[in-house]
Amino acid sequence: MRFFSDNAAAAHPAVIEAIAASNRLDTAYDGDEWSQRLDRAFSDLFETEVRALWVSTGTAANCLALAALCPPYGAIICHKDSHIENDEAGAPGFYTHGAKLMLVDGPGAKVAPDAVEAAVSRIRKDVHQAQPKTLSITNATEYGLAYSAAEVGALGEAAKRHRLGFHMDGARFANAIVSTGASPADVTWRAGVDALSFGFAKNGGLNAEALILFRTDLAEEVAVRRKRAGHLLSKGRMLAAQILAMLDNDLWLQNGRSANAAAQTIGKAAGDRLVYPVEANEIFVRVSAEEAASLRAKGFDFYDWAPGEIRLVTSWDQSGEPVERLAAAIAAL
Amino acid sequence: MRFFSDNAAAAHPAVIEAIAASNRLDTAYDGDEWSQRLDRAFSDLFETEVRALWVSTGTAANCLALAALCPPYGAIICHKDSHIENDEAGAPGFYTHGAKLMLVDGPGAKVAPDAVEAAVSRIRKDVHQAQPKTLSITNATEYGLAYSAAEVGALGEAAKRHRLGFHMDGARFANAIVSTGASPADVTWRAGVDALSFGFAKNGGLNAEALILFRTDLAEEVAVRRKRAGHLLSKGRMLAAQILAMLDNDLWLQNGRSANAAAQTIGKAAGDRLVYPVEANEIFVRVSAEEAASLRAKGFDFYDWAPGEIRLVTSWDQSGEPVERLAAAIAAL
Amino acid sequence: MRFFSDNAAAAHPAVIEAIAASNRLDTAYDGDEWSQRLDRAFSDLFETEVRALWVSTGTAANCLALAALCPPYGAIICHKDSHIENDEAGAPGFYTHGAKLMLVDGPGAKVAPDAVEAAVSRIRKDVHQAQPKTLSITNATEYGLAYSAAEVGALGEAAKRHRLGFHMDGARFANAIVSTGASPADVTWRAGVDALSFGFAKNGGLNAEALILFRTDLAEEVAVRRKRAGHLLSKGRMLAAQILAMLDNDLWLQNGRSANAAAQTIGKAAGDRLVYPVEANEIFVRVSAEEAASLRAKGFDFYDWAPGEIRLVTSWDQSGEPVERLAAAIAAL
Amino acid sequence: MRFFSDNAAAAHPAVIEAIAASNRLDTAYDGDEWSQRLDRAFSDLFETEVRALWVSTGTAANCLALAALCPPYGAIICHKDSHIENDEAGAPGFYTHGAKLMLVDGPGAKVAPDAVEAAVSRIRKDVHQAQPKTLSITNATEYGLAYSAAEVGALGEAAKRHRLGFHMDGARFANAIVSTGASPADVTWRAGVDALSFGFAKNGGLNAEALILFRTDLAEEVAVRRKRAGHLLSKGRMLAAQILAMLDNDLWLQNGRSANAAAQTIGKAAGDRLVYPVEANEIFVRVSAEEAASLRAKGFDFYDWAPGEIRLVTSWDQSGEPVERLAAAIAAL
Repeated sequence: MRFFSDNAAAAHPAVIEAIAASNRLDTAYDGDEWSQRLDRAFSDLFETEVRALWVSTGTAANCLALAALCPPYGAIICHKDSHIENDEAGAPGFYTHGAKLMLVDGPGAKVAPDAVEAAVSRIRKDVHQAQPKTLSITNATEYGLAYSAAEVGALGEAAKRHRLGFHMDGARFANAIVSTGASPADVTWRAGVDALSFGFAKNGGLNAEALILFRTDLAEEVAVRRKRAGHLLSKGRMLAAQILAMLDNDLWLQNGRSANAAAQTIGKAAGDRLVYPVEANEIFVRVSAEEAASLRAKGFDFYDWAPGEIRLVTSWDQSGEPVERLAAAIAAL
Repeated sequence: MRFFSDNAAAAHPAVIEAIAASNRLDTAYDGDEWSQRLDRAFSDLFETEVRALWVSTGTAANCLALAALCPPYGAIICHKDSHIENDEAGAPGFYTHGAKLMLVDGPGAKVAPDAVEAAVSRIRKDVHQAQPKTLSITNATEYGLAYSAAEVGALGEAAKRHRLGFHMDGARFANAIVSTGASPADVTWRAGVDALSFGFAKNGGLNAEALILFRTDLAEEVAVRRKRAGHLLSKGRMLAAQILAMLDNDLWLQNGRSANAAAQTIGKAAGDRLVYPVEANEIFVRVSAEEAASLRAKGFDFYDWAPGEIRLVTSWDQSGEPVERLAAAIAAL
Repeated sequence: MRFFSDNAAAAHPAVIEAIAASNRLDTAYDGDEWSQRLDRAFSDLFETEVRALWVSTGTAANCLALAALCPPYGAIICHKDSHIENDEAGAPGFYTHGAKLMLVDGPGAKVAPDAVEAAVSRIRKDVHQAQPKTLSITNATEYGLAYSAAEVGALGEAAKRHRLGFHMDGARFANAIVSTGASPADVTWRAGVDALSFGFAKNGGLNAEALILFRTDLAEEVAVRRKRAGHLLSKGRMLAAQILAMLDNDLWLQNGRSANAAAQTIGKAAGDRLVYPVEANEIFVRVSAEEAASLRAKGFDFYDWAPGEIRLVTSWDQSGEPVERLAAAIAAL
Repeated sequence: MRFFSDNAAAAHPAVIEAIAASNRLDTAYDGDEWSQRLDRAFSDLFETEVRALWVSTGTAANCLALAALCPPYGAIICHKDSHIENDEAGAPGFYTHGAKLMLVDGPGAKVAPDAVEAAVSRIRKDVHQAQPKTLSITNATEYGLAYSAAEVGALGEAAKRHRLGFHMDGARFANAIVSTGASPADVTWRAGVDALSFGFAKNGGLNAEALILFRTDLAEEVAVRRKRAGHLLSKGRMLAAQILAMLDNDLWLQNGRSANAAAQTIGKAAGDRLVYPVEANEIFVRVSAEEAASLRAKGFDFYDWAPGEIRLVTSWDQSGEPVERLAAAIAAL
């Protein structure tokens, strides 16, 4: 029973069906009928005019956004435990042509407004230091915490005050939205977010993510950068179709709810062992090496996050017995 | 009836089935069972040990290869009508961090050894000029010509003489192989090729291409560059499965044969109107504007390549009646 | 007697004196009194408010300007024989992060408006091709021709029409100005030029060039890029002092006049052998290999430009007897 | 009396004389007689065959070395207070095409071997994280500490163990050498250093630094990168002549001794107020805001480094009365 990563889960059957259904002759690249429906679909979802571009990976979505929001000679404020810092092999440096990541700390991989202020004020306003130009946060965070709309709004204020572009890595956006109950609009553009990496691949999609541009003036440039990065699929309809299937009947929310519910079940069983509150679909649990081994012996697979700490991730398709069994196993430690 | 581009065609049903069949929990990225089989499958096909990496687009395959073969301060010799020069939005400049494309000319978008020699000898051996470090050719070419193994071998000799890396853009590799009857090995590594972009998306694949490294020492670096470019899908098995389906029972050759046969039918009808001999699945035909309009009026779609010249491209799934009708329409002009 | 290049000549004594005179404690970088005077001095010279930054080389001046005027995914229209294409080791690709040079042809290395139009119209307006964003010309050209204000103005119109930034490489700006008699303002910003690399090193300076920004809004970014490229000298006063010495009493024009006069003397002697009219300080002469050898035997040094063609370059400090002797030697061929 | 930075000091008269003396026609770029003598001069100094290239700034020297030692997708281990991290406007990101700086901590801006080990071991050996490829240290450090040969050697061992290139930023190399009495060879290549930025501009030079390559195989590539960065002066003899003048009669050591002696005088007066031991030419002193103001009122200029802490820097030309007066003023606080 694999609680290693939501990355590895199967895609939802509706997604596979959508790919199959879109497999017919149409215009290449993003001129097809599925791709053409994305702007409208996301504009409806976000209650404002947006531009939406499909890409195949979250790294591509994140880095295309960052490249559009930060010049090569600028810096991007982000959490020291963020995905863009730790898990993208320097892709932000590649896409932005060398911009710096300016790391801040904060509990649960959350960025707080005063951390942004401190980062900005540490930098001399001269040509000798890379100046902060962009803020990037992850929602839900790498430790499974969800930002409230008010929290994002406070960051958006800080960003505006210092003329920073504002990017949200939403690899687990569904889990965050389900967790807080905030509307997609409230937690993004109404809070000052310029661009959102809207993740589907961890939530039942196969290989489709949507890059949502609330600053629609960036769309032309981002479309060029996407092509230049080799991310303009000739049969892009297969990505668009996946995304539309996920939006259809709120499948993305339904999947997020399943994963979050499973995480709650496990989190409750973990009780005082929890390192962070469980707000999305990740559970960090304090266990000894022996305890970890005993869980593995029972057939559970997971990530050793740090000494004495394991990470469990639930997926959209995990519920019922395996989850209950894991919860029981943890409770029994 | 669309003869616009092989890009836009549907994927082969076996490919869609393979994606569906691979849609189950497995290790993320390229640790899954399908991805793990690629090296073996292509090593068998090429009769030597190779490393094979999936990517989503031909641009990514080309540019990852070029970045591994050419330093940022070097130059890449290629045809002025090549895809990397004209149709990748400057992606080679992005991936190589600014290397130059050093353009040569030649009939049918073919690069000849003496063109390589001339390009090399034009450059002073000093620090003021970007030095050629890599040669890139397309097979079949942008005008539908296929290189013989001997022709590639002569280029490989030139490359070796001048210490150039040697890359082959095989977006239409199947069509080329079918055309010449050469073995995949003879037309690539035995002829000096270091890296091949082995295309599937134009030949019945959905969004999978294979980057074949005959210089296996490059594999580690290329794998890092792939991740850094955002091209490491979390569910990479969906790409590997497509490729394996294409290799299975030589589906890639079968599809290439279909497309080439259709092109032959049309090419024969075009007769003296042909701009280039038809060796793969592209047909360039001299027609007046009125003639082009009359073909369109009959329901045929294609690309106006140049004044008085149209491009027709056949796909793996085009045969029988529509092709016959197009041939007849052209013959009747 | 060296007619190889104006690069190699000695600096004017006034320049060396200015360096020595500026050699005292002052604020570092460009906070010193000399650097602070540059904006004013060049604003007076150009009859408009400009921002002027010193750099050590023409390559740096050119490429900082191009990086500010062209995004990484854009293209720069320039002559195929331009310095940025042929003699800067791919520096434009480095500074712009991979922008393409889009080459045009034209007699005497001059770019004509219709060549710009043709280059622009050749490019499809889609994401598959790098879009032209900047025009760069050299004045005087690599073959020693000077643009009239009207010629530059026509190019400026074309640039405006297609929203291209407009850069002038003025490595031999003094020679051009002396040649046409145009005012510096007329041949630059009044004609639509956004940025000028104002060369001094070939005209009596030691290692100082001025990057003149007519678009003063670019100055902040360019200052950052200069630092980031390692071109912000800690004792920048030594560059500023050189430049001010060159502007003082129009030394730059006086030096340009000397070099041009010497070139005229030689050019007249060459008569029908001239490949291009002599308008600045370069003379291209058709000579046989034997004739070239006979000139060298007489002690003259120069560049073999092409088969049957030599390049002679005069410097600010070349006049009188050696020039007369060279003229006589050529006339006697 | 300015104790703000050694950057701002005047150049030594011998340096200005050397520039003037080299101001005559010679071969351009680095073909002149002065430039040609550098390899020999530094090979003698370092007791091994080295390649030495002049550049105009320390940032250029550092970043050319880093670009040669670290691929774009790698990481460079350095101190969080290093110049390359804090004071070069992201130039390492520019020159390396986006490599990461991997920051370590340590007292006095010194990097210790166990900090290198910890940094390396923190990184998973997979494609998701940028892998450390280079180590860069500063000697003397940003806080004026000098590494012993043994300390550098231990770092060199760590670098070798993890296959890291090893770069030393020697902006204040003279002060470090004078401080420890180590031989230039012992503290560099014998200790495993691959490339040294040998600074002169802070030590009596005007605008010349030497990049010393102990790995001579890198020289060809670095020479190309220097040109590509716009750092190949056409009259490079003016840089080479400065450097030769500094080497002549050990002027560099003599200047370093003067600056260090002045720093000792001040350091002794500061006594318990010292933040770090004074080993080179920088003195960090704990003073209250009022005390800082009183020093300024007496005519001393310096940098407010941190709350309650000032930085004083002595230059090669500071000795005698001003230094004694500053020492007395600090002692009297």
